[in-house]
Amino acid sequence: MSSRSRGFSHERDLVRRLWERGLAVIRAPASGSKAKRVPYPDVVAIYKGRVMVFEVKTTRKRKEIYIKRGQVEKLREFAERAGGKAFVAVKAVGTGEWLFAPVEALEQTPSGNYKVSLEGGGLLKMEQILAEAMGVKSLSEYLGRATRA
Amino acid sequence: MSSRSRGFSHERDLVRRLWERGLAVIRAPASGSKAKRVPYPDVVAIYKGRVMVFEVKTTRKRKEIYIKRGQVEKLREFAERAGGKAFVAVKAVGTGEWLFAPVEALEQTPSGNYKVSLEGGGLLKMEQILAEAMGVKSLSEYLGRATRA
Repeated sequence: MSSRSRGFSHERDLVRRLWERGLAVIRAPASGSKAKRVPYPDVVAIYKGRVMVFEVKTTRKRKEIYIKRGQVEKLREFAERAGGKAFVAVKAVGTGEWLFAPVEALEQTPSGNYKVSLEGGGLLKMEQILAEAMGVKSLSEYLGRATRA
Repeated sequence: MSSRSRGFSHERDLVRRLWERGLAVIRAPASGSKAKRVPYPDVVAIYKGRVMVFEVKTTRKRKEIYIKRGQVEKLREFAERAGGKAFVAVKAVGTGEWLFAPVEALEQTPSGNYKVSLEGGGLLKMEQILAEAMGVKSLSEYLGRATRA
């Protein structure tokens, strides 16, 4: 299987997991196609008007993932138009676990590209992404609200 | 150009027109691919949380377009999860004009499939779709509100 086919299979895995939990999910056509004249994210998930857009990456034991500036700009532009949130979705090959980095939390490198630190905290797990998409508040948000009241 | 490539070029035309007007728009991968295990619409457009999903058809001088029941069910399922509106988008080959039939307005045939009557009224033009996506009320809605006030 080519690295390109493998890339698609990971995107399909993300689509399938989100779809099974009730979200509407769509994957973009192949990057090489003419369709990319319009800057698509890899995957878009929607639940009752709440939109999440994803750039999909995979890793084997690496501690950092790098993303080109252009890809991040493309993701932000789409999310802004859609009124949604943008994430870099990182799949750990081997365990199959997904982690999600909100684009606002990406570190910029000296060359102007972006970096996800997989050990630095601030990443979301699949259940947190689903909770956010489906409008379920996290425990910390409930506690925060209770404290302020 | 194969009929399949032509189909894609019409989908891309719809994507481009909606993108140029400020919407976030994504096209699904080829129907034949494995990706179709999840029921994607042909095109999804989003503007600030308002979602529209489209099944794309083309016509040359025909007065009616037929759509299989399964395609309509797929479109409705996606729109319901997304909290959006579903349309059959019909492009008149030759003039290049697009017309949109809301799925609720489709006529069912005796065999259980669906039909769009291109001369029957009730279809929306591109400008009406854009106005609805962008939350601009139509003149008739303003007049309706003024009358009730």
